[in-house]
Amino acid sequence: MTKLIKNAKIITMSDLGIVNGYAFIREGQFVEIKAGIPSRQLESTANEVIDANGKWMTPGLINTHGHTGMALLRGHADDLPLYKWLEEKMWPFEAKQDYEAIKAGREMAVAEMLLSGTTTFLETYHLFIDEFAEQLSEIGVRATLMRSMIGLCSREEQEEKLKEAVTLAKKWHNHANGRLQMMLAPHAPYTCPPLFIERIVEEASLLQLPVHMHLAETSKEVHDHIESYGVHPFDHLNQLGVLDKVPWLFAHCVHMNEEHIAQMPEYDLSVSYNPKSNLKLGSGIAQIAQMMKKGINVALGTDSVASNNTLNLFEELRIGVLLQKGILQDPTVLEAFEAFKIATVNGAKALSLNKVGQIKNGYEADFILLTNEEPHLQPKEHVYSHLIYAVNGSDVTDVFVQGKQLVKNRQLTTLDQEQIMYTANKAYHRIHHS
Amino acid sequence: MTKLIKNAKIITMSDLGIVNGYAFIREGQFVEIKAGIPSRQLESTANEVIDANGKWMTPGLINTHGHTGMALLRGHADDLPLYKWLEEKMWPFEAKQDYEAIKAGREMAVAEMLLSGTTTFLETYHLFIDEFAEQLSEIGVRATLMRSMIGLCSREEQEEKLKEAVTLAKKWHNHANGRLQMMLAPHAPYTCPPLFIERIVEEASLLQLPVHMHLAETSKEVHDHIESYGVHPFDHLNQLGVLDKVPWLFAHCVHMNEEHIAQMPEYDLSVSYNPKSNLKLGSGIAQIAQMMKKGINVALGTDSVASNNTLNLFEELRIGVLLQKGILQDPTVLEAFEAFKIATVNGAKALSLNKVGQIKNGYEADFILLTNEEPHLQPKEHVYSHLIYAVNGSDVTDVFVQGKQLVKNRQLTTLDQEQIMYTANKAYHRIHHS
Ligand SMILES: [Zn+2]
Ligand SMILES: [Zn+2]
Repeated sequence: MTKLIKNAKIITMSDLGIVNGYAFIREGQFVEIKAGIPSRQLESTANEVIDANGKWMTPGLINTHGHTGMALLRGHADDLPLYKWLEEKMWPFEAKQDYEAIKAGREMAVAEMLLSGTTTFLETYHLFIDEFAEQLSEIGVRATLMRSMIGLCSREEQEEKLKEAVTLAKKWHNHANGRLQMMLAPHAPYTCPPLFIERIVEEASLLQLPVHMHLAETSKEVHDHIESYGVHPFDHLNQLGVLDKVPWLFAHCVHMNEEHIAQMPEYDLSVSYNPKSNLKLGSGIAQIAQMMKKGINVALGTDSVASNNTLNLFEELRIGVLLQKGILQDPTVLEAFEAFKIATVNGAKALSLNKVGQIKNGYEADFILLTNEEPHLQPKEHVYSHLIYAVNGSDVTDVFVQGKQLVKNRQLTTLDQEQIMYTANKAYHRIHHS
Repeated sequence: MTKLIKNAKIITMSDLGIVNGYAFIREGQFVEIKAGIPSRQLESTANEVIDANGKWMTPGLINTHGHTGMALLRGHADDLPLYKWLEEKMWPFEAKQDYEAIKAGREMAVAEMLLSGTTTFLETYHLFIDEFAEQLSEIGVRATLMRSMIGLCSREEQEEKLKEAVTLAKKWHNHANGRLQMMLAPHAPYTCPPLFIERIVEEASLLQLPVHMHLAETSKEVHDHIESYGVHPFDHLNQLGVLDKVPWLFAHCVHMNEEHIAQMPEYDLSVSYNPKSNLKLGSGIAQIAQMMKKGINVALGTDSVASNNTLNLFEELRIGVLLQKGILQDPTVLEAFEAFKIATVNGAKALSLNKVGQIKNGYEADFILLTNEEPHLQPKEHVYSHLIYAVNGSDVTDVFVQGKQLVKNRQLTTLDQEQIMYTANKAYHRIHHS
């Protein structure tokens, strides 16, 4: 199966820079990216030829932290103190969710992500991973899944959860032609006792899988950890000796100090920056400009729509970048090209995906096409600037994963949008009023 | 001329709250807003009936600070230190702009604003106000215009500028069936000597017009003002005795202290909050949550696309609200309903527009329709939440000003989008390469 995309302005995010030309795809991978017009011969060998008509073509965006299992909770509660929001709104609703509800929310979340240009996302949640993996294989999107584990329970229950996580990891890792990847996921240092974290890391190391965890999201969490253990959660992990055992992906990292930021580059770890969720919940602002200056790999995440309330990475990135400039009162930090890497190149690295996040020979053909025929994108020529400061998720017209077209002219090809929205609303009302 | 909008979820932002029903418009004003289905009789008297099919209907958004005269500069330069950005990029380009270029940029800016739901905007710029006013009368959008004045020149030149501003104000105030309003606009305390500000306020007072000025945008500005005059620019205006002479609209107000915020409610003044521009230029973050708590009227502005880089008020508001929660580490500030007032009710107040910003009998029929048939807006029912946290400018499908439809199913009715974009790109290249 071969596909030719011609007449595109290809923002490769690789050594190739920006290429005004074409990309040839074979068996889901880029095999030729060149400036100019493809030869007649090449064109005739392609099973499908897509004329991009001057559209922008970029790597698909990568969402490195989220919980699609909570997708029905968009707008369910906002503007509340964190404990009230969690205890009175989030948990009671989540406790009532059944498989139908979670499935409905997840389809809606995947639809939203695809339509706004996300081709890879990370899901950490504790329910129905098996079913979701099965479904994602069909939908065709790329995903990194994990069974999120909270360890506030007996050792037996902890081991049961871990066993489930390991079984799922073995079953689904590298499944769906490599589009599914797995990680292990202790929820957070405040919900997982040290011994449990050590056990999880031990298993991850055996499986050669990365570990994903929430870290230092709120000042209360850090404060409480110091009360309980005498040290900041990052220092605690460091003392446990788990940081050099596996690759780590930490979500949030809002409340890290200078010393932590100096130590972090010593390990194979990435940070998932979730600016909107951190703002909306009043958690604060991660110092990602400083982290990146130290060489730490920073990627982008949305968290769930319960605290965001969108899964739109163009919006997430714009806000995240503007925020750093404002906080540091320095317009020069996170220049547009570097910033776009956060949502592409760095995202792939954070998820240990070797051949994703760039448009380059031998790489997976995960990419998007964007219109540039809207007033808010003129004058057209400042492409990197527009990608950060002007493009909306709604400017994405076409989305491809492994060469397969999942969005065509703003319509989902492997999901039924109308059906999804109907089902999601129905499920929400059923749970909400039960 | 009468018009009936039926089957709408009307978010009135007035005492009426949310009305699932219809709105009847006569001669550009709302005359009946009711729940349910309109009577056959009412429907038969309408010259036009629009079935909103369950769409959301809100007041049109109000942009209280901008410079459409700079619209070609989107993406021209980003990520630079402020002085370099201004001296090496902005000013040289602006100096080369002729009428054709400014006109092209302005049309593009108006197109972008209309398409993303803005029905009223403020323009402060020094060139071609007459021509713009003429054109805006035709386009049909509501606008508050002013001839921006920089006083770093001789007294004679200052008086000439002021004379021009006054002539324009007299000519255009309340023109175009009241859609055009005028203000006087000393650019900023650092570009207008005290005597000039006093002269401008004197004239504004005679004309009974409000005064618009940039204030305390950067810490450097405040620092330099203290160096030159011994006081903060706000204290300086206070000492000059100009604050109680006219209604004031100050853009930015990023660097105000607690005492200023305590004094501000004593005057008839509003603040135009421009969060994206303030972040992108590294200026900082205005303390608008505190200001609003003190009863200060805070409205929303975009500034120009040179520092934003969009004119999308839904995006501006979302960022502005999230920012306050994050900075204060308090998720409860700026609850969604209050937040939406910033872009509607408060905007009208900031521009001294009595009958704008709400959907209410006797008010101007400036409103928008929004689709709610997108995955990112489900579950549908949390309307205020979605308006702040989930709606994109691209969800706006229809826009009306004074009852006249200016956007119909995402297409401009009084502007030619294709022509505008062609002309804007051509003008940009001509100036850029001259
Ligand atoms: Zn999370
Ligand atoms: Zn300005």
